[in-house]
Amino acid sequence: MSENPPDTSEPSPSAAPAQGDATPTTTSGVSRRRLFGLAGAGVALAGAGAAAGYGVAEASAGPATGVVPFRDTHQAGIVTPAQDRLHFVALDLSTTDKAAVQDLFKRWTDAAERMTSGGEVTVNGAVGLNPQSPPTDTGEALGLAPSSLTLTFGIGASLLTKLGLTDKRPPALIDLPRFTADQLEPARSGGDICIQACADDPQVGVHAIRNLVRMGFGTTEVRWSQLGFGRTSSTSTEQATARNLFGFKDGTNNLKAEEPALLDEHVWAQGADGSDWMAGGTYLVARRIRMHIEIWDRTSLDEQEKVIGRTKGEGAPLGAKAEFDTADFSAQGSDGEPVIPEDSHVRLASAQALRGVQILRRGYNFVDGSDGAGHLDAGLFFVAFVRDPGKQFVPMQRALARKDTLTEYIEHNGSAVFACPPGLSAPGSYWGQGLFT
Amino acid sequence: MSENPPDTSEPSPSAAPAQGDATPTTTSGVSRRRLFGLAGAGVALAGAGAAAGYGVAEASAGPATGVVPFRDTHQAGIVTPAQDRLHFVALDLSTTDKAAVQDLFKRWTDAAERMTSGGEVTVNGAVGLNPQSPPTDTGEALGLAPSSLTLTFGIGASLLTKLGLTDKRPPALIDLPRFTADQLEPARSGGDICIQACADDPQVGVHAIRNLVRMGFGTTEVRWSQLGFGRTSSTSTEQATARNLFGFKDGTNNLKAEEPALLDEHVWAQGADGSDWMAGGTYLVARRIRMHIEIWDRTSLDEQEKVIGRTKGEGAPLGAKAEFDTADFSAQGSDGEPVIPEDSHVRLASAQALRGVQILRRGYNFVDGSDGAGHLDAGLFFVAFVRDPGKQFVPMQRALARKDTLTEYIEHNGSAVFACPPGLSAPGSYWGQGLFT
Repeated sequence: MSENPPDTSEPSPSAAPAQGDATPTTTSGVSRRRLFGLAGAGVALAGAGAAAGYGVAEASAGPATGVVPFRDTHQAGIVTPAQDRLHFVALDLSTTDKAAVQDLFKRWTDAAERMTSGGEVTVNGAVGLNPQSPPTDTGEALGLAPSSLTLTFGIGASLLTKLGLTDKRPPALIDLPRFTADQLEPARSGGDICIQACADDPQVGVHAIRNLVRMGFGTTEVRWSQLGFGRTSSTSTEQATARNLFGFKDGTNNLKAEEPALLDEHVWAQGADGSDWMAGGTYLVARRIRMHIEIWDRTSLDEQEKVIGRTKGEGAPLGAKAEFDTADFSAQGSDGEPVIPEDSHVRLASAQALRGVQILRRGYNFVDGSDGAGHLDAGLFFVAFVRDPGKQFVPMQRALARKDTLTEYIEHNGSAVFACPPGLSAPGSYWGQGLFT
Repeated sequence: MSENPPDTSEPSPSAAPAQGDATPTTTSGVSRRRLFGLAGAGVALAGAGAAAGYGVAEASAGPATGVVPFRDTHQAGIVTPAQDRLHFVALDLSTTDKAAVQDLFKRWTDAAERMTSGGEVTVNGAVGLNPQSPPTDTGEALGLAPSSLTLTFGIGASLLTKLGLTDKRPPALIDLPRFTADQLEPARSGGDICIQACADDPQVGVHAIRNLVRMGFGTTEVRWSQLGFGRTSSTSTEQATARNLFGFKDGTNNLKAEEPALLDEHVWAQGADGSDWMAGGTYLVARRIRMHIEIWDRTSLDEQEKVIGRTKGEGAPLGAKAEFDTADFSAQGSDGEPVIPEDSHVRLASAQALRGVQILRRGYNFVDGSDGAGHLDAGLFFVAFVRDPGKQFVPMQRALARKDTLTEYIEHNGSAVFACPPGLSAPGSYWGQGLFT
């Protein structure tokens, strides 16, 4: 009758804990490809004149079929090798009912674990077999591979205020100061909660965010969201450095997954100052940076390279030969001027200039249509993970906003800071659990 | 000195016609990967204290390194197997100077041919080696594969009016009537020119549109643009049917590249009625269809399947078993009602209901952030290629707008029609040439 009979016995690579329920309407840890076949069968059984097929045809799954483990010491999507696509959403609470929020976080965790392993969203462990109910999963990722999907969860300081949990606020979860030239739009800034979806297939990332948003109906609503299509930083030594929309390699000197000591120093929160629930977590700083690409494109190659402080082709520090050569900030040209200009981006953002400050960047390029003035609305959605935004991002951005010649070509119009709790290594633990215990 | 010395001798797979110019600043048909290395070398030669590297590191090129031939009987990007990503732009003329427009179309054609073969944009055949000038190519696709990039060119009726070429207007290039429930926004509709970029790597598509927009500065400006991330139709029997954001397979019965007789009947214009310049061309109908996914997601599986007329898992017509089974529109259930409801989408859009009308669909899913009201701004960017919009798209959309229950869940808020001329099989021919001769 079918080439793909449903198979409810085989768990997916990182299956959810067994729910001890083997009725036909309950399935845990089954691949996305199989579950909806089962739903189709349910329709056939339930009548309505429809004889549904069992097998779900495989769509264009792309090459990256990987599964990134959901439960680990730290959340996935931070030092995970940066996937190709981003869907980032900031949500606001539409309730102050702490129990409702806690319940949502539990349900989100279950759904996130299922989706990152390639499975479907369920309700109470059951797939939507009842044709008289909405499907538990919206379906657009059926047949697609897990695509290295990661879902990274964070909370904003405003959530703590709304839920009366200000005693839980870690000192590192600051409100950013206003920086010179900031043109922040409230509709692109802030948020009580963030969820960062990264995947190598954008439809998989969009499916995940859409289903989590859907589950939050009545408890949360979308404040803003951002899609990104080309990673601009490498988080692993195995990845080549990608280019931003100025055409330059971006994030050459980024922190890397292979440097655990540096990550402990610069990325992972230690849970000091009474915020034990954040030990092993990190702070996410998001900035929507519109690039005035039309102006940039009229700038000479020489000027572009001086603004950045690197060559455009190879990405080498000016005066050096290869991308990963050490920048020589003391070198002078025959004219007596520094080879890497004083106001160049690489010099101002360097650990040398910032007394050792380093950050883990994980941004994406974006194009959000056009701006109504004949230009593309394009730029860089900057995402950084740091141990302490006030000690890392703030001094860096202050220096850049004041002196960086790049500032003439960009505009920061969105901004947010979120506390991303540690990973959920304990079975049954859930997003934000530390807030409620 | 370098692991990748520049090599200007080897042409790319579909190299541009040789320009008979072998000076160091002129290169034709060289891969994108090499040219900017050359530019870097130019910087080193020119001094400025910068010793540039020669090799451009390979970024994440993805699997699809294919080159789709640019010069062919028909334009690429129509029956080309649908790539994964879309960047579509509509432009308006900012001049009525016919010669300036003609010159731009020639330069665009050269750049499009270079970029689709994996090369860089040049000016008068020269790459931007002069460090005192802006680079001729913006650079963000350096190191990326051609990624099956296609660039498809069309003109709107408004261009003919602005340039005093109304005698060239083909009768098939109609203004669409207003359909029931249309909620069209002028800022998302119309346009003098369209360029559709499709590629398997979004950064490659964005790079192409951005560089063409840049070249048009002073002659054209962006009216609107749209990115799409998941194809929703198959244009080849070799492709599996993908899913739209309602979670259903979309375009199962689409026309396919492997059916040339049907394409001649339904897609390719024959140049009748005095519009010889459109013979072998086609008409592009674009509709931005916002999907109210939050409402859809609260609808039962049974209702969803009745609205579409297919099962969600397999995509089979209701009452049938497999996706490509023939829909039996006469079948009745035990309740005496049609198994495929009278107001279902597949029935209303079927060739049977529309007396033989078929179209070539080539749409993409989109998510454009959120709408300010707590919802994702998501949907389907519908693109269809037809021989005669008035005889194909209009009756289909009329039937759907009047009766389709799907209409309750969607909103058409953008609309445009463009005439896409035939392919440029003749060497040296250029986009829109038929308008000027």
